[in-house]
Amino acid sequence: MPQAEPRLATDASQSLVGRFRATRRLMQDLLEPLSEADATIQSMDDASPAKWHAAHTTWFWETFLLRDHAPEYALFDEQFPFLFNSYYEAEGERIARRNRGLVTRPTLEQVLDWRQHVDAAMEALLGNPACADLIELGIAHEQQHIELLLTDIKHAFSKNPLGPAMWDKTHKQAPAQQDGWISHPGGIARIGHQAEGFAFDNEGPAHRTLLQPFALSRRLVTNADWAEFIADGGYRDHRLWLSDAWAWLDRRDIGSPLYWRGDEHFTHCGWQVRDPDAPVSHISFYEAEAFATWAGARLPTEFEWEAVARGQDAPQDAPSFEPAAGNQLDGAAPPQPVGTAELFGDVWQFTRSTYSPYPRFQPEPGAVGEYNGKFMAGQWVLKGASCATVRGHSRPSYRNFFYSQQRWQFTGLRLAKDI
Amino acid sequence: MPQAEPRLATDASQSLVGRFRATRRLMQDLLEPLSEADATIQSMDDASPAKWHAAHTTWFWETFLLRDHAPEYALFDEQFPFLFNSYYEAEGERIARRNRGLVTRPTLEQVLDWRQHVDAAMEALLGNPACADLIELGIAHEQQHIELLLTDIKHAFSKNPLGPAMWDKTHKQAPAQQDGWISHPGGIARIGHQAEGFAFDNEGPAHRTLLQPFALSRRLVTNADWAEFIADGGYRDHRLWLSDAWAWLDRRDIGSPLYWRGDEHFTHCGWQVRDPDAPVSHISFYEAEAFATWAGARLPTEFEWEAVARGQDAPQDAPSFEPAAGNQLDGAAPPQPVGTAELFGDVWQFTRSTYSPYPRFQPEPGAVGEYNGKFMAGQWVLKGASCATVRGHSRPSYRNFFYSQQRWQFTGLRLAKDI
Amino acid sequence: MPQAEPRLATDASQSLVGRFRATRRLMQDLLEPLSEADATIQSMDDASPAKWHAAHTTWFWETFLLRDHAPEYALFDEQFPFLFNSYYEAEGERIARRNRGLVTRPTLEQVLDWRQHVDAAMEALLGNPACADLIELGIAHEQQHIELLLTDIKHAFSKNPLGPAMWDKTHKQAPAQQDGWISHPGGIARIGHQAEGFAFDNEGPAHRTLLQPFALSRRLVTNADWAEFIADGGYRDHRLWLSDAWAWLDRRDIGSPLYWRGDEHFTHCGWQVRDPDAPVSHISFYEAEAFATWAGARLPTEFEWEAVARGQDAPQDAPSFEPAAGNQLDGAAPPQPVGTAELFGDVWQFTRSTYSPYPRFQPEPGAVGEYNGKFMAGQWVLKGASCATVRGHSRPSYRNFFYSQQRWQFTGLRLAKDI
Amino acid sequence: MPQAEPRLATDASQSLVGRFRATRRLMQDLLEPLSEADATIQSMDDASPAKWHAAHTTWFWETFLLRDHAPEYALFDEQFPFLFNSYYEAEGERIARRNRGLVTRPTLEQVLDWRQHVDAAMEALLGNPACADLIELGIAHEQQHIELLLTDIKHAFSKNPLGPAMWDKTHKQAPAQQDGWISHPGGIARIGHQAEGFAFDNEGPAHRTLLQPFALSRRLVTNADWAEFIADGGYRDHRLWLSDAWAWLDRRDIGSPLYWRGDEHFTHCGWQVRDPDAPVSHISFYEAEAFATWAGARLPTEFEWEAVARGQDAPQDAPSFEPAAGNQLDGAAPPQPVGTAELFGDVWQFTRSTYSPYPRFQPEPGAVGEYNGKFMAGQWVLKGASCATVRGHSRPSYRNFFYSQQRWQFTGLRLAKDI
Repeated sequence: MPQAEPRLATDASQSLVGRFRATRRLMQDLLEPLSEADATIQSMDDASPAKWHAAHTTWFWETFLLRDHAPEYALFDEQFPFLFNSYYEAEGERIARRNRGLVTRPTLEQVLDWRQHVDAAMEALLGNPACADLIELGIAHEQQHIELLLTDIKHAFSKNPLGPAMWDKTHKQAPAQQDGWISHPGGIARIGHQAEGFAFDNEGPAHRTLLQPFALSRRLVTNADWAEFIADGGYRDHRLWLSDAWAWLDRRDIGSPLYWRGDEHFTHCGWQVRDPDAPVSHISFYEAEAFATWAGARLPTEFEWEAVARGQDAPQDAPSFEPAAGNQLDGAAPPQPVGTAELFGDVWQFTRSTYSPYPRFQPEPGAVGEYNGKFMAGQWVLKGASCATVRGHSRPSYRNFFYSQQRWQFTGLRLAKDI
Repeated sequence: MPQAEPRLATDASQSLVGRFRATRRLMQDLLEPLSEADATIQSMDDASPAKWHAAHTTWFWETFLLRDHAPEYALFDEQFPFLFNSYYEAEGERIARRNRGLVTRPTLEQVLDWRQHVDAAMEALLGNPACADLIELGIAHEQQHIELLLTDIKHAFSKNPLGPAMWDKTHKQAPAQQDGWISHPGGIARIGHQAEGFAFDNEGPAHRTLLQPFALSRRLVTNADWAEFIADGGYRDHRLWLSDAWAWLDRRDIGSPLYWRGDEHFTHCGWQVRDPDAPVSHISFYEAEAFATWAGARLPTEFEWEAVARGQDAPQDAPSFEPAAGNQLDGAAPPQPVGTAELFGDVWQFTRSTYSPYPRFQPEPGAVGEYNGKFMAGQWVLKGASCATVRGHSRPSYRNFFYSQQRWQFTGLRLAKDI
Repeated sequence: MPQAEPRLATDASQSLVGRFRATRRLMQDLLEPLSEADATIQSMDDASPAKWHAAHTTWFWETFLLRDHAPEYALFDEQFPFLFNSYYEAEGERIARRNRGLVTRPTLEQVLDWRQHVDAAMEALLGNPACADLIELGIAHEQQHIELLLTDIKHAFSKNPLGPAMWDKTHKQAPAQQDGWISHPGGIARIGHQAEGFAFDNEGPAHRTLLQPFALSRRLVTNADWAEFIADGGYRDHRLWLSDAWAWLDRRDIGSPLYWRGDEHFTHCGWQVRDPDAPVSHISFYEAEAFATWAGARLPTEFEWEAVARGQDAPQDAPSFEPAAGNQLDGAAPPQPVGTAELFGDVWQFTRSTYSPYPRFQPEPGAVGEYNGKFMAGQWVLKGASCATVRGHSRPSYRNFFYSQQRWQFTGLRLAKDI
Repeated sequence: MPQAEPRLATDASQSLVGRFRATRRLMQDLLEPLSEADATIQSMDDASPAKWHAAHTTWFWETFLLRDHAPEYALFDEQFPFLFNSYYEAEGERIARRNRGLVTRPTLEQVLDWRQHVDAAMEALLGNPACADLIELGIAHEQQHIELLLTDIKHAFSKNPLGPAMWDKTHKQAPAQQDGWISHPGGIARIGHQAEGFAFDNEGPAHRTLLQPFALSRRLVTNADWAEFIADGGYRDHRLWLSDAWAWLDRRDIGSPLYWRGDEHFTHCGWQVRDPDAPVSHISFYEAEAFATWAGARLPTEFEWEAVARGQDAPQDAPSFEPAAGNQLDGAAPPQPVGTAELFGDVWQFTRSTYSPYPRFQPEPGAVGEYNGKFMAGQWVLKGASCATVRGHSRPSYRNFFYSQQRWQFTGLRLAKDI
């Protein structure tokens, strides 16, 4: 096990090869604290098993890089594509999503063997310029699944009445965030990916949009803020809620963020006392919208958020997920929002923008084109990054997206207002 | 039966009093061809009984006008508000939506008595300037329910294996539409209601937005176009469909617009042979989006549509729903798209814009504020008007909205493309 | 109002012709208090519209008598069989059960015309000995639908928040029932239909069974008894309930018989104060079983019940449903249990016997064979009759049957115990 | 691998202590071929994880024996009862059944430690006469869960597209069964447990019942018989099916026994070619009933079956589940019906008897009384035993029970007919 390996840093200054290796290792390191059973189960349809993430990302490399670009390469196992394709219709039939947790075979060990096999085969392609773009995509893809692995296993552990911990750590204390508002004069703003470097197709084409004057809060809404909302009857006042949201509250009997129980909340370190100063997380769009109405404010649009973020240069320093190599969280805390990340990091921030194509957007041809475009209906754009996002993964133009009622990600909010 | 009664025309040149009376009469005229049973049943959760529409609109006048502004007025029946409130949480408890079809009492006759009673009481308020805005709202509200009555009863009749007809008429033959595209150079466009006259709160505030150059089709997609889409395997090619749409197709086993059967479709006049040249209708957003992709085009945004419509002056002439008074459709055809309405009329046209608040939108205080704002999530904006819309009801800034899978309205599409 | 009109009496002493005519008239009389809308709606999947009952029974005569035995007869309307076949697979396709309430056309008037047409055509067959058995079956079938019409419309009216009344009557006061137990020494008992006269196929073949000594309560469980059960926490004590029943209670949030509300219950005469001395009704098998356990007793088997009933001769005097002709309930009360009917009448009594074929049971060949046999799984046998049963319809060997959770019939219980 | 270890034999001649130890060891041996992930997952609500079976049976000993009868005993872990109570309401809250597959912690190793701990503590009670009855019950209980573990893991593996094998073995070839019928003259038969030795409460009280003359087939219905039924359109002929069964076929799109695929079926040894001569298994009651009708026969009653079985003395020799100790299936085949077991063994045989209490049945007081009585509704009695039943577990009075549509047990049928 390499000891001198630097910490994961996927900024553009690092080589593609370095980032490929670090990302692959990080996914694998996260499996270490998990038993084979932990890595296999699926706690809801929205979540996937940890082993599945480890395998699906490997399938991605095998399918779109090795199969298509390494002529000699033979599939490790003919049956794995059926098991570990996620949603690429063009790549054929696949196991029903809700049955992912029933795949005890191949074993975790077999999946790790596959990873090793694919990693070895990939070495020959890493220097191939014709593959560079796909490799960038594969790294970003695996980073997304690293975040999902973290949030999916958190959800799975939360369903266990014993509330097991993935790591025996304590979380950092949240420092007080800076109050106040960042004002923006409005006008025409450049939106979308424009810098050198990798971006997903959904971040472009770059284009201009017209903004009204507005202000964005310097700080994220905190657990203490949310407790006040609850104490004020926020969950029982229909005037604060969208019509669909009100029906959802009633049907699901919801009265607090996911993972709250008394003064505690569930974390990767088990049940912990909540820090009032920490950013609230694990809320749905519906709850974010209701809170903003209660607070006399509103959610920002994705364009407003990006316009403010463009003036900042934060992403490389954001305290998002960054375990040391060698599978030890030495020093580094497990993912938990603490509120020091400025715009980026800590929690994904809901916007009032639906996830729609930018003007002149065209999906890529072929199976890779299914990456983003086909999800552009019924979801909301979230900006920033979360404490479970791999450092360097996000950027101002990044567009994350979830449905109105989903809560298992590290989702929070930053208020906006008209000025 | 008044013979000299002019046709319904709700343009601004007509008096408020005239429009109130004509709208109230039209709703009532539409009940004439219906048996008491026809008027009572509810064929799905999205639809309401015809009697319910007649009663709910009456409840609106009684609640927001007479109760609040006519000091002497006593409720016609204390129990009716519970039965005929639709979704106004601020106005108290109400019958579950799915049970509306079980309300056989009050009878249709009692509801008609209530209408007469309320109409008589309203006369004293019609000249009251303090009430003018609410009366405008009430008229627009009743016009919306006239359209819903027409589409809901069409759906109900369609579920009867006998396929009964509401009217024994034949539909007009659709003339060929004009081909070609209307180009727009892009730039900053004024959006939202800005003229004198009534508009819903969701049409404002007026604001500016930035458009890219685009073109909008001069014509609506026709039944013949759609047949070609089907023949080309459009419903079976996953590449054309959004991910949620593809799951919906599969779950519901959908392969054509609603109401299609062989060469026929279901109409207010029973099963009729489809006119290939008529605009396709009763399609979902999902289908509209897939068709546009298949056609190498896209849906317009609501802003693009409105920018084009601003240059036109069509609404007063649009062949939307316009029966003669006296309950006879003499000459006038029952609602069925024929394709002569330019931008307005014939079918509501899907846009690629989600139904969201305009910048600085604020719902009105009180129950009336529940009119639009609380539905601003998960739905799509439709522009134009349909053959079942009361003439004069729509305008360029009008925003209709439905969920992705709903099809029972006269919904169609007009393609757009980048230039 | 015709005074000399004889009351309905379907005992064997009356002629087949007389019983045919009286039964047909009774069904029709029950439609009189109903509006066309009342007669059309369907309040749940288990229930059917009143108009449907009127039509389906007519379909039975048309199909199994006129079509098969009257060579000249032409169908009244070719489309009616599709609409009004209930469950006879051998008779072809039919409308989905849950959509019966959407059939507003044919109108009630058209259905009544059909009835008249079929009744007239039937006259020629009434004296035909080859048809006598089928006519007996048809009469019994129509009597069953008379009872269903009564219980289905009660359910439909109960879902209307106004709680409308079918009749403006008051119910008879329940006399105190006689206490005590009827002992039976056990031994071999003759079971099943053995007398002359009509019986359903499921009542045979007659056979012998072996009974242990037991006792059957002289009286039905009353509303007062049930109130005591509730007050004692009966609905919250898991020890009293079958496992499936306990899950049902929880899922449906059940804590009293159907139609109870405070001190009232819903009746054909609207909401009325409950009579403590009247037999409890509208309970499920699950509730009957739990009550019996709570009372330290048990439900009888169908064989025990029948063995006791054989010694009695009550059915012809039972106060089951018996309105005067001419559509007036003069003197006669609307169906409501009062507790004077000995074993028969008032309420159907749950047994601990599942609805299974008797030894050597064989369904009849052809569509008529679908009458009973195919329902012999998952249901419970009920004995006796109810206040909504047509007088003379029941007999000691009669086997009614419902699922464990159904409550919309007049179902009650009579306790048994081992001795 | 210990060679001198005697095979499992739970016949009455063996000591209680010996049977306790052998049963406990067998459960544990069955976990050997499973990975931790295999042992943890739950493939449907009806099934439980293998680890759960290992833990739940341990909970039974800890709760009803050690807690109640070993004064010094302290719970191994205070949280385990919540996790591993199955359905005993009297023993408090417990995890929702459908979430059993999410309990990755405690680990399998911890559960095995618990087993060891409990086994050690049990040694002191094994000789205590006051505990003998409960120990017998505990052994029988654990044997039932051994069978469930086998059928549940088979189901789980079947949902994995790879079709993994629990054992790499081949199944025995089925010998031809003996044709013909066993006639019974009818008359009064003694039913229920009457011998010395253990029986479940639901097998008593012993009582008499009256039988008609009948015959029971000497052989079980085979895969070849079933293939003929399918070829003859058996799954598509409504006349053969109960009404609920027909709806179930349609809803679930069923056309063969569970685990059939082409000429293969799924077994504990993976996908294997079906043996035409082997008894059919994994059929539902609905299918058994339809087949019997198609064959011109019927299902036996539980009383008929028992009356024939009383004259036989087969259970000790039945080839039910009997792996060698030491965790190797050396010589012994994995569970798969082969048809040599006379009445007992191979497959559970559906009867036409619903699972109801015998006359004068009373559940035991306390939590143990929840063992059987509360399931006496809606299920069918099955007689015999299956190839997955522990040898010696069954007897003529044994009553197994399942719902009409369940198929994941080794369920088959033996025809009966009237003579």
